[in-house]
Order: sequence, then C-alpha cells, then structure tokens
Amino acid sequence: MSKRVLVLGGDGFCGWPTSLRLSQKGYAVTIVDNLSRRDIDRELECSSLTPIRPITTRIRAWREVSNNSIAFAEIDLATDFDELCDLISEVKPHAIVHFAEQRAAPYSMKSPSHKRYTVFNNINATHNLLCAVVKTGVDAHIVHLGTMGVYGYDTGLTIPEGYLKVLADEPQGYKEVEILYPASPGSIYHLTKSQDALMFAFYNKNDGIRITDLHQGIVWGTNTSETSMDERLINRFDYDGDYGTVLNRFLMQAAVGHPLTVHGTGGQTRAFIHIRDTVNCIDLAIENPPAAGGKVDIFNQVTEVHTVHALAETVSEMTGAPIRYYGNPRKEAAENELDVKFEKFLGLGLKPITLGRGLLEEVVGIAEKYKDACDRSKIVCTSAWNDSIEIDYKGSSSPVRDGDVSVAA
Amino acid sequence: MSKRVLVLGGDGFCGWPTSLRLSQKGYAVTIVDNLSRRDIDRELECSSLTPIRPITTRIRAWREVSNNSIAFAEIDLATDFDELCDLISEVKPHAIVHFAEQRAAPYSMKSPSHKRYTVFNNINATHNLLCAVVKTGVDAHIVHLGTMGVYGYDTGLTIPEGYLKVLADEPQGYKEVEILYPASPGSIYHLTKSQDALMFAFYNKNDGIRITDLHQGIVWGTNTSETSMDERLINRFDYDGDYGTVLNRFLMQAAVGHPLTVHGTGGQTRAFIHIRDTVNCIDLAIENPPAAGGKVDIFNQVTEVHTVHALAETVSEMTGAPIRYYGNPRKEAAENELDVKFEKFLGLGLKPITLGRGLLEEVVGIAEKYKDACDRSKIVCTSAWNDSIEIDYKGSSSPVRDGDVSVAA
Repeated sequence: MSKRVLVLGGDGFCGWPTSLRLSQKGYAVTIVDNLSRRDIDRELECSSLTPIRPITTRIRAWREVSNNSIAFAEIDLATDFDELCDLISEVKPHAIVHFAEQRAAPYSMKSPSHKRYTVFNNINATHNLLCAVVKTGVDAHIVHLGTMGVYGYDTGLTIPEGYLKVLADEPQGYKEVEILYPASPGSIYHLTKSQDALMFAFYNKNDGIRITDLHQGIVWGTNTSETSMDERLINRFDYDGDYGTVLNRFLMQAAVGHPLTVHGTGGQTRAFIHIRDTVNCIDLAIENPPAAGGKVDIFNQVTEVHTVHALAETVSEMTGAPIRYYGNPRKEAAENELDVKFEKFLGLGLKPITLGRGLLEEVVGIAEKYKDACDRSKIVCTSAWNDSIEIDYKGSSSPVRDGDVSVAA
Repeated sequence: MSKRVLVLGGDGFCGWPTSLRLSQKGYAVTIVDNLSRRDIDRELECSSLTPIRPITTRIRAWREVSNNSIAFAEIDLATDFDELCDLISEVKPHAIVHFAEQRAAPYSMKSPSHKRYTVFNNINATHNLLCAVVKTGVDAHIVHLGTMGVYGYDTGLTIPEGYLKVLADEPQGYKEVEILYPASPGSIYHLTKSQDALMFAFYNKNDGIRITDLHQGIVWGTNTSETSMDERLINRFDYDGDYGTVLNRFLMQAAVGHPLTVHGTGGQTRAFIHIRDTVNCIDLAIENPPAAGGKVDIFNQVTEVHTVHALAETVSEMTGAPIRYYGNPRKEAAENELDVKFEKFLGLGLKPITLGRGLLEEVVGIAEKYKDACDRSKIVCTSAWNDSIEIDYKGSSSPVRDGDVSVAA
C-alpha cells in the first residue's frame, strides 16, 4: 500500500508542484488548502502571469495525464480544527507537508490588517496542525517549509544547518550548549516562522512529534517535470511587488521590456533554490524522517548564494535589460554577508540546479509566452516596512530619485 | 497633568492591585479587560477563595476610598483591534502595562481547545497591542508581564537578567554575541510568552517601540496596601489545581486541613515574588523606561528562589499540616538547579518582601477567613501534559500511589 501524505497549502507555488511530484512517486496525496492565495490575487488585483487552473481542473488534468488520483479537502487550517482532526484521523498520513502559511514578506507588512492576518493565519495554522496531530494520536512526520529569513541577515554569524553550538560563560568555566540559531526575522512573515520554530520545539519535547523544519531560500523558476506535462498543470508565476520573488521578477521584467528593479543598493546577499530542487528536497525530507525521540531536524533548503546586484547583472548581460535602482521599502541592512551551510540535502543525494543560462532562458521563455498578462503597475514594491520610509512611487514604476538610475551596458 | 497608563488585564490577580497602586501614585489609570478570568471561573466551576467584586463595584469602591477615578473599557484585545486603536488614540497613554494573557500553565494544557485558546488569545492580544501602538503612532512604553518559564528549567545555564552573552565559533575565531536567552518553555502558556518575546524584538527593531519585558517568578500573597483598604477592593486568591500558585495553595491547604499537595518529588526549584513586590516592580518599570532607540529591556521580576519541597516543609513546620506526594501531571525535570540573576529592581530601590513567618501567617489568615468558600474537589492538579501521563485521581485528592505518601512531623 502506498504511503499517505497530506500537503497543506497544496494549491500554492511550492505546494502544487510538490503534490504532483509526490503523486508521481507513488504517494497517496491529499491536498488541503483554503485557496487563500487565489483570494489574495483578487484582493491585490493581480494574478499569476501563467494561467493557473482551478484546483479541481488541475487535479482532473493530473489524473488524465498520469493516471494518479489526488484528493482535495478545502479546509482553513487556522480556523477549521475539527475538520482537520477528522481528516487526519481518516487518512492517517505517514507524513504531512506544511506549506499552509501566508508567505510574502511585503504582503505581511502592507498594513495593520495584513500584519494581523499573517500572524493570525500562520500561528493558528501551525498550532492547529500540531494540536491535531497530538489529539488524533497519528504518528505522522511533519515536514514544514520554514525560511532562511528566520536567521535574518544582521547577526554576523555563520549560519549552521541545524543547531548553533556556542560557549556560555558559567561559574565553573565555559560550557558548550546547542541552541536554536537566535532568530532575527526581518518582517512579520519571517517573525511567524520564527514563532513556528518555538512551537515545533515545544511539541517535539512535550509530545514527541517528529518534525523536519526546512529553512528555504528564495525560490526561482516555474515548472517542474510534472507541471510541464500539460498546460493545465502549469505552476504559478508571481511577478508583482508583493509575491514575486526577485530572480523571477528580473526575468519577467526583461521579457516585458521593463528595467530590472533593484530596491536598495542590491548589496543584499540572499540564498536561492530552483523550484525543481524544492520538490526534490521535500521528497528527500519525507524519505529521511528524524528518529523517534530525536529533536526537530533542521535543514537549509538552499543551493546557492548571490547578491541581488549580481543577479541583476547576470540577467542584464543575458537580456540587455537595463538595471534601475529604487528606494528600499524594507528596513534591512543595505549590504550583508551570508555564510550559510547547506550540506544535508547534498549528503542525501540532491543534485542541485544552479543558475545557468539555459535555465534562465527557460524562465524568460515562460515570461515571454505569457507577457500579455502582465500588469506593469504591479511591478514595483510599494509595501513600506514602517512609516519613516517614504515611498513616492506608489503604483508607478518610476524611480524614487532620478540620480539613482543607472543603466547596464 | 498626571501621566496616563493603560492596564490591560487590569481586573486580574496582578492587574487589579497594580491598577490601584498606579492610581494611588497619581497616574490616570484606564483598565482594559474582557473579564475572561471571571468566565474561566465559571467554566472551571471554581472561583477565587476571596469574594472579589464586579469590576464596576471595585472601581466605585476605590473612588469612595481614595477619591481617585479609574476608567474601565471592556475590550477583548485578541479580537477588538479597532476599539483598542480608538482607545489608545483617545487616551494617548505614556505607558501600557500588558497583563492581558491567559496565565495558567495547567489550564493551557487541559485539552486541545485550551491549548488553542491560549495560543489564539495570547499571541493575538500581544500582536494587536504592538500593531495598534504602531498604527496610532502614540509613543507609549509597553511594560509586559513575561514569565521565568520562558527560560525553562532544563538548559543548565545561569539565567542572566537581560541578554545572554555567548561565544560563537566563527572561522576567524570566537566571537562574542548577545542573544535572547534560548527559550525552553514547559507549557503552551510559557510557549506563548516565548513567542511574545520574538514579537517584542521585531517591533522594537522595525518600529522603535519601547518595551520592558518582566520575567516574573511565581507570585504569592493576596493583598497590597491598596487592596486592604476596603473589603470590596480585595484581590483574587486562587487555590485550585489550574490557577492556584504553589505557595498560596499550601497556605490554603493548611488552613482547611488538607495535606500539602506536592506534585512530583518537590525537587523543582522555582523563583518567587510577593504580590506587593509585583506592584512595586511594575511601578519601577514604568518610572524607568528604556531609552529611545534601545533594545527591549528585560528584568527578572523575582526576589527569592526555593524548591517546592522546601516551601512545603516551611508551611508544614509552621502549621503542622502533613505533606502528601502526588504523581506529577507535568512533563518537567523531577529536580533542577536555578541560578538566576535578579539585581535590576534591587538597583532601582526595590526592598524585597521575602518569605517570613508573619507574612505567611497573614496569607493563612486570609485562607482561614474565607475557607468555607473552598471546594476541596478542586485542590489537586488534574491537567496532564501529555497522554503518556496517567492521572488516576481525577477530581479526588487521593494520591496516585500510596507508597508515595509521607507525612511531615
């Protein structure tokens, strides 16, 4: 009998291709989603550049293409606790992949109500899941999508993969202790994932729940081998200032003839991963659960590290698109080092897909194909981190100060 | 003009005497409370041993006795965000004291719904407060009642007052960094206060909010100089297995002729503070706000440290009450060391009230006076931390195993 997996948030950018991969590999997959990401598209009056289909169409298409069935339950994790318990009791999953959180930092900072929604949704969703696993007594391994942003970019420490070993100055001399890396989240969204980590530690200690927390870098790319099998299976492609991820945004901007939008100096150093590696990593995490009685297992789901500026240069050189510098709506260091370990997935056999011209061109191809769907007014980032940050380019794509404009060769 | 203070949770065990003290000192006090603690009394079919009056009666009595007015707003912080913003905008408080969280560890572990309520209430209350202070732009100093339980009792490290300095092993050699003490909460309640600390750090960093977080020990005692002024001002006295604090429970048990209930070995070492010092500390914290631009200020609101066993012995020697050992419904270390710094409040002039026979007898006097209100079936702790902990004394006060019974001389 095939192993059963719940994919919470299985209709989203990472959740959908993961669901297909797991289904393709023979897992019995149930997607749980409240379709909130589609509601947010309507709220922001913006949508995926690619024409994503309704969830039931997606699932029907997958059955036609692959002969595999995926079940779907429309449940709001943050509120529908009893339904979640019933589902877990009925399915008795071996693993539960938890993507079901509001996942955009700019969206989480847009307004008081967006901050409050993000905290309400993410904390209650994660806690309800943990509480439901304890209540139902099902021995499911929880695989959670965390974020590199829980580490933050301002501590100046090397980021370990797992726990940080430090020396504490005790009366009897220095003592080595292993601690969670001190969280330094840079947005409400990242804050909630730092709070999740505390919940995982508690439920692991108190109830023995087996949990893997995956601190993922910024995802780029669109399709996987499964989502490419039929246009009805196509994955989301977000290009807007709230949900679009930086590299995908540059590639789309190049395709539609918009300058590449660097917010700040471009000296921000970040970790990246291709969506195909996201699904490979989730698969590996499910296959390698932590031992019963062990601590929460922490992986850095990352394959390479770049500055935003270097990414912009790469895309500019490849496409000829100019680079334009905008004011930074985020409160963050203008520049930072990022020394992060990412060895565990490589040790489990991951063959990482790193930035290569062919792959970049594949994404430009997607953007080219669907560029008529682009609303240029949604391109720049307008969500300011606090009131002292002035944004004078609301809704337009003109730069904050003309003097900041530079155009690459 | 007098300084304005909001006391969130001002109808509760710590909040009420704090409100009176601040009013007595000349602050213009507004109590904000949803009266949830009174609802929980009804849910648990148990109530304060002392006859606490309705909030409006309390406030009217205070005006008669002291000639000072206290305002009251019935607002649920976790849900009534707009009302909270309106109140903050209207009052423009200099300080906001935040007691408005579900504060009992056993209650937070009673059932999935109690776990979920505690997370929902505490996280959303704290986040709504922070979000409202940012939204309204009022420069209020937030004084939050944290708990020693965020440190936990299992890390084996000396607990600093403020941040922990550790050495991290970096490529260029050991580097000293100052971090939040690694949280190790022992219940859902303590978990939420650990999560609060992350929210405080974020809002302090991102929005410059001035915050003092007070990690308080276990409170004992009942009345303060203000609550003693009229019986209608009397403070709560909880003796039940969910809300009663250990020393008050022993004193009440002695008064009603019940054996002193030690759950576990009694080797648990904990920090304590008298309710009169709680109100003194809050007063001192308000008078000594952190500097603008500074980090979150952290105090340990503690005046002495004892084992549960030693407290039981002290009360037993004083009253002749026997000690009885029960199974421990909590998942915690049977015994622990507790090396905690508590120097900041002493430096600000606190003259601590430590365990003395006179004070203990004062509390026994309260318990004697109101002992007819005691429901003996509520005395033992029945809220188990997880399903592997068997409690076979539900609703009774008989020990788990007869062999565990010991009676003091």
